[in-house]
Amino acid sequence: MGLDLTVDAVQLTEDLVNIESVSRNEAAIADAIEHALDDLGHLTVVRLGNTIVARTDLGRDERVVIAGHIDTVPVNDNLPARREGGILHGLGTCDMKGGVAIALRTAATLPEPNRDITFVFYECEEIEAEHNGLYKLSLSHPELLEADFAILMEPSDAIVEAGCQGTMRVDVTTRGERAHSARSWMGSNAIHAAADVLSRLNDYEPRRPVIDGLEYREGLNAVYVTGGVAGNVLPDSCTVSVNYRFAPDRSEEEALAHMHEVFEGFDIVVNDTAPAAMPGLSVPAAAAFVEAVGGQVKPKFGWTDVARFSVLGVPAVNFGPGDPHLAHKQEEHVPLAQIESVERELRAWLEA
Amino acid sequence: MGLDLTVDAVQLTEDLVNIESVSRNEAAIADAIEHALDDLGHLTVVRLGNTIVARTDLGRDERVVIAGHIDTVPVNDNLPARREGGILHGLGTCDMKGGVAIALRTAATLPEPNRDITFVFYECEEIEAEHNGLYKLSLSHPELLEADFAILMEPSDAIVEAGCQGTMRVDVTTRGERAHSARSWMGSNAIHAAADVLSRLNDYEPRRPVIDGLEYREGLNAVYVTGGVAGNVLPDSCTVSVNYRFAPDRSEEEALAHMHEVFEGFDIVVNDTAPAAMPGLSVPAAAAFVEAVGGQVKPKFGWTDVARFSVLGVPAVNFGPGDPHLAHKQEEHVPLAQIESVERELRAWLEA
Repeated sequence: MGLDLTVDAVQLTEDLVNIESVSRNEAAIADAIEHALDDLGHLTVVRLGNTIVARTDLGRDERVVIAGHIDTVPVNDNLPARREGGILHGLGTCDMKGGVAIALRTAATLPEPNRDITFVFYECEEIEAEHNGLYKLSLSHPELLEADFAILMEPSDAIVEAGCQGTMRVDVTTRGERAHSARSWMGSNAIHAAADVLSRLNDYEPRRPVIDGLEYREGLNAVYVTGGVAGNVLPDSCTVSVNYRFAPDRSEEEALAHMHEVFEGFDIVVNDTAPAAMPGLSVPAAAAFVEAVGGQVKPKFGWTDVARFSVLGVPAVNFGPGDPHLAHKQEEHVPLAQIESVERELRAWLEA
Repeated sequence: MGLDLTVDAVQLTEDLVNIESVSRNEAAIADAIEHALDDLGHLTVVRLGNTIVARTDLGRDERVVIAGHIDTVPVNDNLPARREGGILHGLGTCDMKGGVAIALRTAATLPEPNRDITFVFYECEEIEAEHNGLYKLSLSHPELLEADFAILMEPSDAIVEAGCQGTMRVDVTTRGERAHSARSWMGSNAIHAAADVLSRLNDYEPRRPVIDGLEYREGLNAVYVTGGVAGNVLPDSCTVSVNYRFAPDRSEEEALAHMHEVFEGFDIVVNDTAPAAMPGLSVPAAAAFVEAVGGQVKPKFGWTDVARFSVLGVPAVNFGPGDPHLAHKQEEHVPLAQIESVERELRAWLEA
């Protein structure tokens, strides 16, 4: 299926939405993007799986990565796209084919930007990290991601959201001894022992550190609790799964040390972890970008792939059309005006 | 298959064990029991499903029920029976074909007992209460269970265990409001709210009331806890399933009122309840029985079908060979000496 990059960004968003691309099913949209970029002639295009990298090579002093994932969460009776007033509705309109459309339009219509650009359109962002196209690229071809700055076009309400908080999930397990509940004095109850874990969560005061002028807000929350053997048995084990969202001034190692501190005396097993990303607004390229797009910037609380750039030493921000709270919702949508404003501001920065 | 009631009680136990009778598969053993009792001539035999009632009708001043269930939990590589030294091993040796054998021997060899006897051999004790043969009989033919006293031949280590504690399971549910765990201040965490439920369980001081000279021991225990929506979501609901074991001086209504008192402020749903049974040792027939079998008596902590007799106004005790802690275990077994002593003592009481 051909993709016409000469249409406007709103129309291009709609065209992209109408190529269904649920995670693991990105071949069609990746083909369309690859061919359209190949046809342009001024970009070096590389494809790895269903991830496409397209680079200018103009010898500019600075290089910026502009990236977006091309997959979506599963279809939920929200295709094809539907335009209503100033809103485009449908799967992927918000998360994040609006941003992808802007990046593709920029690739097509700005052959000589004032900075070299590496466009990355990648697969499998919505599923397990091991399949994530950006992650795989960072392992196999880190040189393709070398840059002074990166813009991830995730929905951010058309305002720059800088850095991102890290996330760690630990299982905190209490132990007991089984016994028949009719003779409970013969055992000890692991669920009762979890009262202490939950009390520590209730008493916990999350930090709100200010970094590069942005106030982050940490959080420590039980997300699962499980325990029990049978309706007449004292359970010998109870597990509280705790999600720690930590600000970018903490590494994963520091976050884990903190978990050991908070849950001292209990068994802890880490079963998921991803680093935070510093906002990096003190880097000249980042500061210039924020200035160019109006100076407004907010901290990013949720985890995004900007953290992958951070690991590579590339400061990165989120900047894209769409309300991030609408991501993954059946009713996701994007205001056409945000697609237009983000494109205009990005373009102005690359033409200045 | 014929059942020879002239063999000794140990041999009869072994013969009964070797007729596999997992719950819902009691037809063969029920047939054998029915025919053997019919052949005796001095008993009126009634069959309802796989439950058999056999009664003397000698016009005695007093009538006693002697009851036992004929089903077992599922086979677990523990058939056929195996005799080793003074122990009989195998499925049902302890729970409770030793007791059933003693009752059958008594039926066969004591045509003129000093009290009228109603023997009850019933199905489906090990599964959902609705299938329980004694329960069904108590609904459809309560007149067949009329008596001054009942002996349930459940394993009790050959000592009288009087009454039984009641049991109630209630779900205590806390509520919250979902939010993404990266923005936890936008919601409220139902698992954290369960800290209060668990603290009340930890602070709870179970009663130890003395009834008819026996000290009972209550217990209040979480047996399950569940909560959680996704690894990055604050849960809006958490349920602690609590099992209350209550002494025979409390009715189910009083037990439930007590749960509302303990968990005031939380939603409570009852999902299982069974009444306690008073030891009833002040009733002359019961006191005489205890005296006849040696005077030793202990409170019964676990729930048994004696509670069904209690509901019918018939005082009842547990008295049978086998360690109750071995019931339902792969390695269940019974000491031959206990089969012999229980039979001897029961017989002496019925012949005195």
